[in-house]
Amino acid sequence: MFSTTADFSSWFADRCRAHEYQVSRVPLDRLDGWRFERGTGNLVHRSGRFFSVEGLDVRDAGREVDAWQQPIIVQPEYGILGILVRRFHGVPHFLLQAKMEPGNVNLVQLSPTVQATKSNYTRVHGGKPVPYLEHFIAPHRGRVLHDALQSEQASWFLGKRNRNMVIEIDEEIELHDDFCWLTAAQISELLTVDNLVNMDTRTVLSGATPFRLTGPAHGGGFRDALNRSWRPDAQPYHDTARLLSWFTDTKCHSSLTRRRIPLADVGGWSRTDGVIAHDEGKHFTVVGVDVSASSREVASWSQVMLQPRSEGVIAFLAKPINGVMHLLVQARTETGAGDVIELAPTVHCQPANYPLNGARPRYLDEVVTAPPERIRFESVHSEEGGRFYHAQNRYMLVEADAGFPTEVPPDYAWMTLRQLTEFVRYGNYINVEARSLLTLLNFADLRAPVLPNAA
Amino acid sequence: MFSTTADFSSWFADRCRAHEYQVSRVPLDRLDGWRFERGTGNLVHRSGRFFSVEGLDVRDAGREVDAWQQPIIVQPEYGILGILVRRFHGVPHFLLQAKMEPGNVNLVQLSPTVQATKSNYTRVHGGKPVPYLEHFIAPHRGRVLHDALQSEQASWFLGKRNRNMVIEIDEEIELHDDFCWLTAAQISELLTVDNLVNMDTRTVLSGATPFRLTGPAHGGGFRDALNRSWRPDAQPYHDTARLLSWFTDTKCHSSLTRRRIPLADVGGWSRTDGVIAHDEGKHFTVVGVDVSASSREVASWSQVMLQPRSEGVIAFLAKPINGVMHLLVQARTETGAGDVIELAPTVHCQPANYPLNGARPRYLDEVVTAPPERIRFESVHSEEGGRFYHAQNRYMLVEADAGFPTEVPPDYAWMTLRQLTEFVRYGNYINVEARSLLTLLNFADLRAPVLPNAA
Repeated sequence: MFSTTADFSSWFADRCRAHEYQVSRVPLDRLDGWRFERGTGNLVHRSGRFFSVEGLDVRDAGREVDAWQQPIIVQPEYGILGILVRRFHGVPHFLLQAKMEPGNVNLVQLSPTVQATKSNYTRVHGGKPVPYLEHFIAPHRGRVLHDALQSEQASWFLGKRNRNMVIEIDEEIELHDDFCWLTAAQISELLTVDNLVNMDTRTVLSGATPFRLTGPAHGGGFRDALNRSWRPDAQPYHDTARLLSWFTDTKCHSSLTRRRIPLADVGGWSRTDGVIAHDEGKHFTVVGVDVSASSREVASWSQVMLQPRSEGVIAFLAKPINGVMHLLVQARTETGAGDVIELAPTVHCQPANYPLNGARPRYLDEVVTAPPERIRFESVHSEEGGRFYHAQNRYMLVEADAGFPTEVPPDYAWMTLRQLTEFVRYGNYINVEARSLLTLLNFADLRAPVLPNAA
Repeated sequence: MFSTTADFSSWFADRCRAHEYQVSRVPLDRLDGWRFERGTGNLVHRSGRFFSVEGLDVRDAGREVDAWQQPIIVQPEYGILGILVRRFHGVPHFLLQAKMEPGNVNLVQLSPTVQATKSNYTRVHGGKPVPYLEHFIAPHRGRVLHDALQSEQASWFLGKRNRNMVIEIDEEIELHDDFCWLTAAQISELLTVDNLVNMDTRTVLSGATPFRLTGPAHGGGFRDALNRSWRPDAQPYHDTARLLSWFTDTKCHSSLTRRRIPLADVGGWSRTDGVIAHDEGKHFTVVGVDVSASSREVASWSQVMLQPRSEGVIAFLAKPINGVMHLLVQARTETGAGDVIELAPTVHCQPANYPLNGARPRYLDEVVTAPPERIRFESVHSEEGGRFYHAQNRYMLVEADAGFPTEVPPDYAWMTLRQLTEFVRYGNYINVEARSLLTLLNFADLRAPVLPNAA
């Protein structure tokens, strides 16, 4: 446990130095263990396991672009993302891990207690056992506070879900190297640091709301309205039955069709110079990396990754309605999601994909041109460093200006934090980007000073 | 509106007499508009619409039988099942419809206000408009009380879901022929009549719990415990976080694989005498019918139906735990359901498929051999008469005997009525058979005398 943030920073720097990591780019056609399957051109591992990169044909998406083809990661197994919680002197602490992932810009970030694909925890690759895994396998010795199958980046993954778990234990457990206990207040500070708390930790914490920050209201009227957004007696703009109906209605109106196609047949993308890239330089590139690490289950490996071509923006517009903070939620066609529509932030895109003089995603300009006093939170975080190479998004909470209308287009709805969090419990409702933002809203002190990057 | 049950019976008999219906069995190869597709042998309509019957290959189901092949109905569109509610002198009334479906044993049953496939309400077959449909299309003039996509018989349908809606209106509306307003108390009585309240009405009413019976406690201690099962302050045996975790865990452990195959390749089933039947006489038969009706959107048509080979049993075992009634819920591998596992009654099977001296579904014998005093509810109801021909199930609520263990196998869990009903709101949790039973528990007076069949 750390008494000060400086203590943590020193420990974290120490953990980063304790191991050696090398990540180097390798052309896909020279990537050890991976090959382009004859006929389909799909990128597969020689074991037939882990994941593959295949093609997806999308039509009638009802987005800015209505039809396209793309490479997509296919990994039809469920991993476990789990955080252990234990009270020390009555104060809840979260067990996090300094973990290297090859896609992280800074290699090491703070991961959940357990972050394991099924291949990891069944030890397909013959690596070391996963520490603390036994706490996440039923029957649980601890109390289950949250346990839901949740989707992941649906523009990049086809039907990928991981199990998000929060388990509270009373017993004393051994603290392994690379692991540390952090309080909610400490995590609050660390969430304002760019690229430190990884995506897996953020999505799991969206289910840890009993421990959210509820201390003295920093942030004035904005924070007050945000706190009221949690209260059971606060009047939401739409009741939950109405929101569920809106969500059902958008699902029933979706006309999306999607079809898996051979990677070799994907139009608009080309295999050149050892990568697969979009012909107009948009979206992402499929790349290969060689990794060597002294701390992971296996000491070295090679793998395929997706590298976004530019930084994304993920933002909620927020507006107090009758004194209660509401977030503007989008019912978004998620091409790779199991049930097609999920609830998403107001804005989620790579702005560089959209020329300033062309069709722009709705509300993007409201967010990127907001004056500083209306930007209540802003930090850059990474997406899963195990699959995505240097994938960074600017996460923002932007207060809508006073004249922003309460009436919004049919794909959008105002929701309170309490309502969003209730949907998180059930799984398959809130997408991973929105879950990350919820964690930032629930745990980050909106006026905490931005620390120098702890790594 | 009816002052007495006799009034209703007389109205209903009148509606049945007002129209003429003819349903006759026709060999599949002579069924107008339908054909066996060349190559696959799939049963399809010449328009390419409505639905088709194809093959499904199932492996690792983890049920009594682990792997099999079967015909299955493929109908990937969402229909609307909707009930309008309106208060007259403060008393909520439900708008139901006397509707003919060719598969009903008695032809006419009580349907929801709107029961329409997408083909119906977009008028693919060029029929009459669907009355009251406008109330179920957003933006709603009424208040949405329930609106969820819910699965249907997952042993017979592949991925079939319908939108279940309850809308409360204040305005006066015209009462069309064949429609009637019924109170919860009247529906309570009618639910004890065999084959009167159809499946669509039962599934929609599972989302109408604000109107459930809460009157004087008939049924003594059993009804008291059932009432307590609703109270927010009643202590459930497992909290909801734990139940969600259990549900997630069973999903993650499911090893089911299913694959669509051509109907012609389905092993264990044969096309003989104009039907497709199971070689051992189990499960169901695919049959053809010619229908003529004076009251439906079109006056005559031909269609494919599934006819079960025997009556099924659908039962919850109930047990008071600390004075609060709990139902024994099964996390069941639902071969045709979108997300594979749904919450199901304790028992759901066709007993005739299982010889007495062979492997029997768990808890079946507890249910079928229960003494009369522990059978708290029992009536025979039909499944969807638009797709299933004479498909009847015996719906039962059976009180477990005093010595019945609280510890149950990993695929089962005890839940309160409040917990089950909360899951109903979210869709994709509670299967159609369990939703039907919940409606019986919430609306049927467990001591109401059984009426003579109103039809």
